[in-house]
Amino acid sequence: MSPETSGRKLRYAMVGGGRDAFIGAVHRKAIALDGQAELVAGALSGSPDKARASGRDLFLADDRNHGDWQALLDDESKRPEGERIDFVSIVTPNHVHYPVAQAFVDAGFHVVCDKPLVHTRDQADALVAAVARRGTVFGVTYNYTGYPMVRQAREMVRAGELGEIRKVVVEYNQGWLATRLEGEGNKQAAWRSDPARSGAAGAIGDIGSHAENLVATITGLEIESLCADLSALVPGRPLDDDGSLLLRFRGGGRGVLIASQVNTGLENDLRLRVSGTLGTLVWRQEQPSELVHFPHDGPKRIFTRGAPWLCESARRASRLPSGHPEGFIEAFANVYGGVVADIRARLAGQAADPLAADYPRVEDGARGVRFIERTVASAGSEQKWTAW
Amino acid sequence: MSPETSGRKLRYAMVGGGRDAFIGAVHRKAIALDGQAELVAGALSGSPDKARASGRDLFLADDRNHGDWQALLDDESKRPEGERIDFVSIVTPNHVHYPVAQAFVDAGFHVVCDKPLVHTRDQADALVAAVARRGTVFGVTYNYTGYPMVRQAREMVRAGELGEIRKVVVEYNQGWLATRLEGEGNKQAAWRSDPARSGAAGAIGDIGSHAENLVATITGLEIESLCADLSALVPGRPLDDDGSLLLRFRGGGRGVLIASQVNTGLENDLRLRVSGTLGTLVWRQEQPSELVHFPHDGPKRIFTRGAPWLCESARRASRLPSGHPEGFIEAFANVYGGVVADIRARLAGQAADPLAADYPRVEDGARGVRFIERTVASAGSEQKWTAW
Amino acid sequence: MSPETSGRKLRYAMVGGGRDAFIGAVHRKAIALDGQAELVAGALSGSPDKARASGRDLFLADDRNHGDWQALLDDESKRPEGERIDFVSIVTPNHVHYPVAQAFVDAGFHVVCDKPLVHTRDQADALVAAVARRGTVFGVTYNYTGYPMVRQAREMVRAGELGEIRKVVVEYNQGWLATRLEGEGNKQAAWRSDPARSGAAGAIGDIGSHAENLVATITGLEIESLCADLSALVPGRPLDDDGSLLLRFRGGGRGVLIASQVNTGLENDLRLRVSGTLGTLVWRQEQPSELVHFPHDGPKRIFTRGAPWLCESARRASRLPSGHPEGFIEAFANVYGGVVADIRARLAGQAADPLAADYPRVEDGARGVRFIERTVASAGSEQKWTAW
Amino acid sequence: MSPETSGRKLRYAMVGGGRDAFIGAVHRKAIALDGQAELVAGALSGSPDKARASGRDLFLADDRNHGDWQALLDDESKRPEGERIDFVSIVTPNHVHYPVAQAFVDAGFHVVCDKPLVHTRDQADALVAAVARRGTVFGVTYNYTGYPMVRQAREMVRAGELGEIRKVVVEYNQGWLATRLEGEGNKQAAWRSDPARSGAAGAIGDIGSHAENLVATITGLEIESLCADLSALVPGRPLDDDGSLLLRFRGGGRGVLIASQVNTGLENDLRLRVSGTLGTLVWRQEQPSELVHFPHDGPKRIFTRGAPWLCESARRASRLPSGHPEGFIEAFANVYGGVVADIRARLAGQAADPLAADYPRVEDGARGVRFIERTVASAGSEQKWTAW
Repeated sequence: MSPETSGRKLRYAMVGGGRDAFIGAVHRKAIALDGQAELVAGALSGSPDKARASGRDLFLADDRNHGDWQALLDDESKRPEGERIDFVSIVTPNHVHYPVAQAFVDAGFHVVCDKPLVHTRDQADALVAAVARRGTVFGVTYNYTGYPMVRQAREMVRAGELGEIRKVVVEYNQGWLATRLEGEGNKQAAWRSDPARSGAAGAIGDIGSHAENLVATITGLEIESLCADLSALVPGRPLDDDGSLLLRFRGGGRGVLIASQVNTGLENDLRLRVSGTLGTLVWRQEQPSELVHFPHDGPKRIFTRGAPWLCESARRASRLPSGHPEGFIEAFANVYGGVVADIRARLAGQAADPLAADYPRVEDGARGVRFIERTVASAGSEQKWTAW
Repeated sequence: MSPETSGRKLRYAMVGGGRDAFIGAVHRKAIALDGQAELVAGALSGSPDKARASGRDLFLADDRNHGDWQALLDDESKRPEGERIDFVSIVTPNHVHYPVAQAFVDAGFHVVCDKPLVHTRDQADALVAAVARRGTVFGVTYNYTGYPMVRQAREMVRAGELGEIRKVVVEYNQGWLATRLEGEGNKQAAWRSDPARSGAAGAIGDIGSHAENLVATITGLEIESLCADLSALVPGRPLDDDGSLLLRFRGGGRGVLIASQVNTGLENDLRLRVSGTLGTLVWRQEQPSELVHFPHDGPKRIFTRGAPWLCESARRASRLPSGHPEGFIEAFANVYGGVVADIRARLAGQAADPLAADYPRVEDGARGVRFIERTVASAGSEQKWTAW
Repeated sequence: MSPETSGRKLRYAMVGGGRDAFIGAVHRKAIALDGQAELVAGALSGSPDKARASGRDLFLADDRNHGDWQALLDDESKRPEGERIDFVSIVTPNHVHYPVAQAFVDAGFHVVCDKPLVHTRDQADALVAAVARRGTVFGVTYNYTGYPMVRQAREMVRAGELGEIRKVVVEYNQGWLATRLEGEGNKQAAWRSDPARSGAAGAIGDIGSHAENLVATITGLEIESLCADLSALVPGRPLDDDGSLLLRFRGGGRGVLIASQVNTGLENDLRLRVSGTLGTLVWRQEQPSELVHFPHDGPKRIFTRGAPWLCESARRASRLPSGHPEGFIEAFANVYGGVVADIRARLAGQAADPLAADYPRVEDGARGVRFIERTVASAGSEQKWTAW
Repeated sequence: MSPETSGRKLRYAMVGGGRDAFIGAVHRKAIALDGQAELVAGALSGSPDKARASGRDLFLADDRNHGDWQALLDDESKRPEGERIDFVSIVTPNHVHYPVAQAFVDAGFHVVCDKPLVHTRDQADALVAAVARRGTVFGVTYNYTGYPMVRQAREMVRAGELGEIRKVVVEYNQGWLATRLEGEGNKQAAWRSDPARSGAAGAIGDIGSHAENLVATITGLEIESLCADLSALVPGRPLDDDGSLLLRFRGGGRGVLIASQVNTGLENDLRLRVSGTLGTLVWRQEQPSELVHFPHDGPKRIFTRGAPWLCESARRASRLPSGHPEGFIEAFANVYGGVVADIRARLAGQAADPLAADYPRVEDGARGVRFIERTVASAGSEQKWTAW
């Protein structure tokens, strides 16, 4: 670590995530967990008054508690290096991601942005290009990739323990939108079911994109073509709240992806099953510290977080001994841990340790945008298969 | 019970199910369990020598231990009423179902036949017509419908506890055909992967048809159109070993059906999730005595077999107190229990108690044949939706 | 197989198990399952009228449907070998076990008797001596030992896979006696809570003895001393409905045994955990097809019934492929299968295959009686440890 | 909130928890999670050099990074109110708890101390008296009480949903001390198995005390007498690594408490079952977001964290929507949340909201010390029951 960066926490700002928001607080807790970065500035809401009130809740200094993100960007751009933020975290509704991310990247700031990255493939391409041009760090919080057992699964597939992958079934089932919450003043439901803010897709964008990312992260498979059925099963909803896809992967594997927010009573049931010639892996987000392995030649094995026989990537993603449950925030913190490691390496003028700087990048975000766009195209087509 | 039938066990014959067979022994154990019927005759194999050897294993009298099913039929047709079988159980490979079933029905015998019922819709229609004409009992061993908790689920849906059904996901995953067992002398694998014996479908016919039946039994929903992707993922296999379908039900519900025999390491993972406006039900065949209910307005509930608060249909399908595990054979026995109750009622000249004579009928079998035929048609089509 | 025994089912009689009984029907179903023996005679109740009515329900011939067990014994003793029963199954309330068992053994009959074997150590010793004298087969239906995964656990311990056993925790928890059912006309509750019929112990005799047997079967450990606390937690009950014991095994291992029938809502929660220097095994009766193994040097493994890598004893105890649930009756049938194999071997004048003739013997039953007697002694003592 | 305390984070110091320590980092992460307090000072090790190096790792200012706790106390005592710490967190090995806690309380500081509180009942009594005298806040990190579902269980018992409690079984099983780690340089194992540092008990003090606290917290029952068997099952270990207790509660309830660190392969298996006249509750720490309820009159229910039908105390203890796993650190943070709420109330001159200031107190710690002392006494006695 260089003299500049050792001995201090990184500084970050947040855009979005004020009062009534959900995911902003998760980002902050995740960052706080490891004590490696501290919130020093923000533009915490699209409404200036709410933004400032939210900043006071978080003990922000008045001069870094802004009413809008442009003011934040201006202010940080002018500050000297020893004060300036090391990165910005963008946790707004989807439609605000693009302008903020583009502006901060263009100004040379490192960025963490929530998913789905942006609304259109053009925006995604522009952002990828900008990050490449400026050489900045850009993390996308596909937070489920931060779970140690997801990393273990990825490593087992890479090491060939499943052989050739034949079948992937991924589901992301929730029940919270089984009624028209968006008509009852629920802010989270309202923006997610509004095409102007959420984008062209509802459930498929909000949670289906996590499912797509999980498959890509763990298996490395590329979708060749897909066949989607998207529906708004709750009457009056303008965007899909339920979607099912048949997938064909390059190389011959087959898949099914299900994302639904109308499974009454289900909570956050993201689950994956990957079968190959030599074995099957099963992972469930609601029991994240277990990874079930069905080898072809012996009894089912359950890998648990914290065990010494896990791969290094999984071991590093763990903070507590086995049996002491970790959860959603720790996984989120692992994504941030990767971003922080990458930024610290750059501040120190060093190459990042790939095992440390392990986080979803802007390209993952762009692929997710393409997934949504292709899915929506397929859903509107009479043809069975829509090419990637 | 009439004087003729009380005080005696029913008599049955079996066609198929000799040495090396799998499912025949299950049928026999299921029938034996309740002591209501006894095996008195058989043509237990397509090979006369093996048939007779198998009959001797089962303590059959020599004069009722036949080398082929035609001889069995001839013999039983000639016997006096007090000796003649009350029903025949057909447990051969698929391609033999039709001729045997048709001949016994035409001769006025009650029949139990394994699934899938027959190879073609024409055969199915002919059989349905013959059963109607002769007025015989005809049961199809969709054995999973015999589980008490499947009956409980059916009752909860009928009673409106899930509200309007929106989404159904059914999976039947096995791993035993993940290698080319059919090339290694495995008899079960050999006939199932041979189109001449298995029919136009592999996994979809063998296990997908159970999944279809489970959905129809529990939800009562009718498929309006479907979109199938069938694959032979093990190289060199002439029939599908993996299939995934998108389903649209009349009335607007959506569904996914997955059947695969190449999920390395998985055993007999039939599972169903049904979500409606008021709740979700989940059932897994490998843990058959539990039915998980997610109501919209309270905590998840787990119904278990044997509890006094189950519906009468579920309670009657149970032999042991709760916590004393029942399994596959008991479910199978419940199908036979329904058939036996129906036959005993007819022998007594009475109408059967519907709760007792609860078993899948020839029409269910015919619908299953149509499901296979429509799925194979869809798999060969470039169009997204194939109408039922 | 000798000419006499091949080609025929064994014949058995039952004492007890008539209308309103619970366990008798389980014995009959278990025997029927494999088609190796048939019920030909009985004295199915202590009340002659009920005995005969029960026999008619089971299609017994009138001349072998007796009003009391002495008549049954007399009749069978007089019948020629080709008609006479091969064994008798005693499924009465506990207090009737001893006179019936002693009389049939003395007359040279093979016997299967339910547990707990008898009321007193003197009775147990007399029975052990009689069996030794007459050289008869005597099985005790500690049915839980018939589960394939219990046999797998026993084999893994014997093979040293757990190293030296240090700690055993066994629990048998039920809830059905959480209210005074015996005051509400429940026959099962009535005799179990009546010292004259149940013996000196309630829950400890009824279910604690199963727990003791399970520990002994799987671990082979011998209790050196014990410390018991027995209570009647439901007011007005004359026998214990809850008991907890500290155990010290010869060689230094430690244990805890819990048996309770007042755990409201619990069903039949028999569970065992055995920890040794090299690993831990966990088994639960309510999910009997799984055996969980925690090795010291790798991830948790779950052995499932029907897998090819199980020991031969477990594989033989299984009738269906993995994933097709087996349950309580199959485990029971495995005990009978052992008895039948032993009887068939004797009829054939051969030594029994030890893997086939695998069933709890009269000595196991006698040890169970001693366990109950020592536990009751400890419960009445102010001293911490009561020697075995 | 008063002007003094709103708008700022609380300040805290830590004693212990430096490099190589385990639990100190957990305390820091737990405090950081909610952003309500920040570490400003410390004496992070008993070794001055290691203490200071550890403080630099945590970005402590040099003048508040002390080599020993006396220096920390002196320094903080002299600082003006606006700088001085609001509380100290004591996370040293057990033998250091007492002198540090006593000194800080005597100086009027609020304290959080790890468990077991101190070594002897005299120390415990002195500490309770000091806290009463000074009127300070004193929290003990019985962290498992911080889990939302533990609070739900406590509330359900208090509300009478279980009726009268009859039986409690609590187990805390680990496997990490199944070998003599203390002889292999493992610091955590070394001090825990050293009577001088750990106290009179090993496993019973380290984890048995958590079990005792969990029972007391959830059920409110008081132990009347106990009967303990403590063993060092790993040869050469001077303190118990395995213990089992029979418990009798005032009012007639019965219990079993098991604590063992030699269950090879088990991780952190703390579990509780409480049965009353109206129902049973089961909770397992390794799946902390589920609370299983067996009511006497309906199916098993599984309460999950985050549901709207939980009690207010459970709802407040939760940060994320249901299905987004929380874990060990969140539970720990809930204990600190209670302490912080109590301190903030005092700073504001107000009475604390009891639902907010919900944390284990010095009296709970003292009761835990008594439990250890009574258990060790019983283990050395030949008498069955040792009075509380």
